[in-house]
Amino acid sequence: MKVDFDKLGGLVPAVIQDHSTGRVLMLGFMNEEAFRLTVETGFATFYSRSRNKLWLKGETSGHRLVVKEISTDCDQDTLLVRVEALGPGVCHEGYQSCFFRTLKDGEWVVSESRVYDPAQVYGSTR
Amino acid sequence: MKVDFDKLGGLVPAVIQDHSTGRVLMLGFMNEEAFRLTVETGFATFYSRSRNKLWLKGETSGHRLVVKEISTDCDQDTLLVRVEALGPGVCHEGYQSCFFRTLKDGEWVVSESRVYDPAQVYGSTR
Repeated sequence: MKVDFDKLGGLVPAVIQDHSTGRVLMLGFMNEEAFRLTVETGFATFYSRSRNKLWLKGETSGHRLVVKEISTDCDQDTLLVRVEALGPGVCHEGYQSCFFRTLKDGEWVVSESRVYDPAQVYGSTR
Repeated sequence: MKVDFDKLGGLVPAVIQDHSTGRVLMLGFMNEEAFRLTVETGFATFYSRSRNKLWLKGETSGHRLVVKEISTDCDQDTLLVRVEALGPGVCHEGYQSCFFRTLKDGEWVVSESRVYDPAQVYGSTR
């Protein structure tokens, strides 16, 4: 179960993909402990670079990511985690996917609608 | 066209996804110049961390990645690039996707067959 955590200071990028639709939902980072917890618990767990701590995705919102399959790439320094996403959206801004902005003529354009109200899920201070 | 290159020392992860099948093919890193070239040329261009230089994907193999759509995430520190992949496979080891190993009972198992012979494409010394 060797993963190369050394290239990026103890972290690897983890691409999160919806296992049924194929949509890429987000990218998070895992350290060795987050990866171990992801495998052992079956819920995607990341290492938050901004908060410097482990982060069980969905711990606040309830929108957990149920692991269906984990792949790694040729260099074993990136993970691809296929999940069932609990809840309407993965993004804390209220969208199904964090990738809700698309490049059009040199500008990032919001290319879809919110699927939930983040203020109701996370509280109005967020 | 603002992208946050600061969080990771001038780089952002770029997830490469097949635009027709939805398969995640690889993850590379782009610096600002690689991102600009990707947008301007329409071919995915990365920054190679091992070689410390720009890297036009397919420059040796001819297996270029034709950009169909570029998205960014809520923090604008990750890119999702939907592509048409020229050639049989993206991975330099001969597979369609770099994510050819899947976790089974705690072990990484090669879960698909090669689609081309890397020795014929890259030369036998690779």
